[in-house]
Amino acid sequence: MGNSVDLNADLGESFGDWRMGDDEAILKIVSSANVACGFHAGDPLIMADTVKRAKAEGVAIGAHPGYRDLWGFGRRALPGEKPADLVWHVTYQIGALAAIAAALDHPIGHVKAHGALSNRAMADRPAADAIGRAITQTDPKLVWYVLPATELEAAAEASGGPLAREIFADRAYEDDGSLVSRAKPGSVLHDATVAADRVLAMVEEGAVTSINGVKVPVAIDTICVHGDTPGAVALADRVRNRLEQGGWTVACRNQSIAA
Amino acid sequence: MGNSVDLNADLGESFGDWRMGDDEAILKIVSSANVACGFHAGDPLIMADTVKRAKAEGVAIGAHPGYRDLWGFGRRALPGEKPADLVWHVTYQIGALAAIAAALDHPIGHVKAHGALSNRAMADRPAADAIGRAITQTDPKLVWYVLPATELEAAAEASGGPLAREIFADRAYEDDGSLVSRAKPGSVLHDATVAADRVLAMVEEGAVTSINGVKVPVAIDTICVHGDTPGAVALADRVRNRLEQGGWTVACRNQSIAA
Amino acid sequence: MGNSVDLNADLGESFGDWRMGDDEAILKIVSSANVACGFHAGDPLIMADTVKRAKAEGVAIGAHPGYRDLWGFGRRALPGEKPADLVWHVTYQIGALAAIAAALDHPIGHVKAHGALSNRAMADRPAADAIGRAITQTDPKLVWYVLPATELEAAAEASGGPLAREIFADRAYEDDGSLVSRAKPGSVLHDATVAADRVLAMVEEGAVTSINGVKVPVAIDTICVHGDTPGAVALADRVRNRLEQGGWTVACRNQSIAA
Amino acid sequence: MGNSVDLNADLGESFGDWRMGDDEAILKIVSSANVACGFHAGDPLIMADTVKRAKAEGVAIGAHPGYRDLWGFGRRALPGEKPADLVWHVTYQIGALAAIAAALDHPIGHVKAHGALSNRAMADRPAADAIGRAITQTDPKLVWYVLPATELEAAAEASGGPLAREIFADRAYEDDGSLVSRAKPGSVLHDATVAADRVLAMVEEGAVTSINGVKVPVAIDTICVHGDTPGAVALADRVRNRLEQGGWTVACRNQSIAA
Repeated sequence: MGNSVDLNADLGESFGDWRMGDDEAILKIVSSANVACGFHAGDPLIMADTVKRAKAEGVAIGAHPGYRDLWGFGRRALPGEKPADLVWHVTYQIGALAAIAAALDHPIGHVKAHGALSNRAMADRPAADAIGRAITQTDPKLVWYVLPATELEAAAEASGGPLAREIFADRAYEDDGSLVSRAKPGSVLHDATVAADRVLAMVEEGAVTSINGVKVPVAIDTICVHGDTPGAVALADRVRNRLEQGGWTVACRNQSIAA
Repeated sequence: MGNSVDLNADLGESFGDWRMGDDEAILKIVSSANVACGFHAGDPLIMADTVKRAKAEGVAIGAHPGYRDLWGFGRRALPGEKPADLVWHVTYQIGALAAIAAALDHPIGHVKAHGALSNRAMADRPAADAIGRAITQTDPKLVWYVLPATELEAAAEASGGPLAREIFADRAYEDDGSLVSRAKPGSVLHDATVAADRVLAMVEEGAVTSINGVKVPVAIDTICVHGDTPGAVALADRVRNRLEQGGWTVACRNQSIAA
Repeated sequence: MGNSVDLNADLGESFGDWRMGDDEAILKIVSSANVACGFHAGDPLIMADTVKRAKAEGVAIGAHPGYRDLWGFGRRALPGEKPADLVWHVTYQIGALAAIAAALDHPIGHVKAHGALSNRAMADRPAADAIGRAITQTDPKLVWYVLPATELEAAAEASGGPLAREIFADRAYEDDGSLVSRAKPGSVLHDATVAADRVLAMVEEGAVTSINGVKVPVAIDTICVHGDTPGAVALADRVRNRLEQGGWTVACRNQSIAA
Repeated sequence: MGNSVDLNADLGESFGDWRMGDDEAILKIVSSANVACGFHAGDPLIMADTVKRAKAEGVAIGAHPGYRDLWGFGRRALPGEKPADLVWHVTYQIGALAAIAAALDHPIGHVKAHGALSNRAMADRPAADAIGRAITQTDPKLVWYVLPATELEAAAEASGGPLAREIFADRAYEDDGSLVSRAKPGSVLHDATVAADRVLAMVEEGAVTSINGVKVPVAIDTICVHGDTPGAVALADRVRNRLEQGGWTVACRNQSIAA
């Protein structure tokens, strides 16, 4: 698969009667979807519906496990949650989605941690290893989506399993390849054209461009976009168009990565 | 496997810091355990711990899915829950436990519905079929524990999958083989000796003995006992001893049923 | 207060990060709001925010207690929930909102049951009485919003406390004054002009107009509108305009009712 | 009220069908009870039942609000929870219990924060102030139970409302009057006689005795005991007996403190 790159987004984040995100629009744009598994968002009905719709659109799916924290949407830091316990919280979520997806003949192919769990695992190796153990023990062929230059990446490399390195279309980077903290000005890109041009440059150069213009070499397998606001959907759409204009194919690479 | 019969009980019904039932004692008595999957009781940590302990005691395990109703312990009737939705609620739960059990190298072998979901499916064929569809689509080799003379049994027979017919050690039966309603006097047996003698007679005769002394022929694969009170554990222990004195082996039969 | 009538709507039905309904728009239209109390929707932050916004718009508020069923949004029938227990479920919810509202100096003035709890209490007198007992024991001056020609109205009359009789702007009525079941065609009015004209006729005539054109005399204190879809907001707006064109003042009448 | 001191314990920490603690035994020992309010434990039925039983035993009650974290029993640290939000979480809980208690004619008299919320507020002044604001805005006569030599005490003093200083019967103290961390050996006293003798000495001397034997002067209004294990109940009983042998009356002092 020559000049191809994956676009991923979080999906299925509704809950019961509450809706979240424009899944319909984003499914027309991305090539892989991270599906919430019921701990921070999602429920069995929404999971089944999301899998069906992703399958209909030809979008690959993966599990998007988070902390057991529905009210906080998995965004509340839970520093005391033990890695040994996280293994089972994550295994439970992957297993639940895997069963639903298999029943609908659209099996999951990857795992990406959500929210505060992901934020923690970027800097906390035992937490990252716990996620890795959950993935490996559930299905060692699942591709683990990780951020370069983090403990997530280090844990994924050590796990011996397949991994995909992910950049964010709308987040600024420091000179060391880490994300600029959301607390700092300029941490989030809002201009769709600027973001799309930067994404194309990054995949062509195999490097993230830092907020200071520094090029940090990075293997880029997948690009994260968002679908939770009209602006985010428009930005995602621009990114996809720009990539295609630049000769890139937007396609999920999990099968070749896991092979 | 000649004179063998299974003894099953519900396990892993704790939640977070709350304990329920004497799992340690009951694991010494039964040959298969129905493990709560997080909707009416249980959580990933308790599920993993229960699987480990069952494995250590040589007790087979299965999924015990219930309504999504933690506060009500899955005992509240939810007549409006659509069968088409139940399919996914049950699939989610089986998948979650199956992943945890597989990771611990003690795979699940059966499914038994819990509480109000089971009560409903005894009389509501579409609800029973929904459970059956969830089982079949998740793993067609899973043995479905059902009550004879109910829509659960009819649905299991129609599903074409393996099933095990279950009687209750401590519940009285009507002349048609159905359970005496808990609202009626004498519906529950409290005397361990009486219950144990009745169980031995029933497995030897291949028939349940009704509250009026009528023998109703029934294939008996498994006998349900309880572990939620000291009296229940003592009764379960007496049942096992009486069966063994009568020359029966207490053993899970799921593998031969599913073969 | 001469030609005045109250317009009420359910508000604060968001939860955590999930939004529900266009509260901002509906607060410009209604004179009283039924605020979810955390059991079927709402949480302390949303409740406080809703109270603040209602106060800023001069909209009176009341408690909108429902079944303890977040996932089902309080819309799942729970026929086994005992009236003796409902008393405490409802008291808890009223007390929680009352404390928040009092702290914000915008005290609650009424109570209206939500969803499946309300549906049940229309036909189940003990359930209706349980709601009434919760209201009376928490604050006997709270006005109870009830539907005419139901057990809710009978229970409210028997309670001796203040009550307000409510009609629905967008629901069809049978010849006996009861709501046409949602299962029947024509049960819900979608045309804003038709609905608004009908509301004005009903308050002027002191009678609901049935689906067959029969006039059923009813005391009308408050009219329920909805804010959960753009169409619902437009209908609510039309109702208010039509009432004002007809010389009616839209205003909460709770203080005079309770006096 | 001469030589009198309060004994308090956490009660009503069951949830749904799950039981926690020996409330029946502890109600015979303590003079005030901290009742869980449904966020980390408890539910409306358990709250009502706990209030009834406390009233029957002549035990004063207060609210025991915790983080919104049922699964974690309010023991998981949530450092990101904003103080401005905590105000409403705590107000909601106090209001809910206050309504139930008032309906049962046994009004609440105090508030004591639970678990991780309390641990945080000991060292985090804005969090402590948030609890204080919730108390004051709900009912300024509620006595706030606080630990001496913490930000909780500082916040309570600054609030201008009534407060009661609390020591633990079974926890060791540092030389500065703070609790010895549970991570250190000797942090918890298990010997009932040693604990009871120490409590008597502390109330007589008006000082806590540190783990090194240092006397740290402290005003002692209430002593916390536990009821969650048989050993804890026995220790609580010994403490009460020793105090009474020493001429002390065990009685809730909230009314005189708030006066």
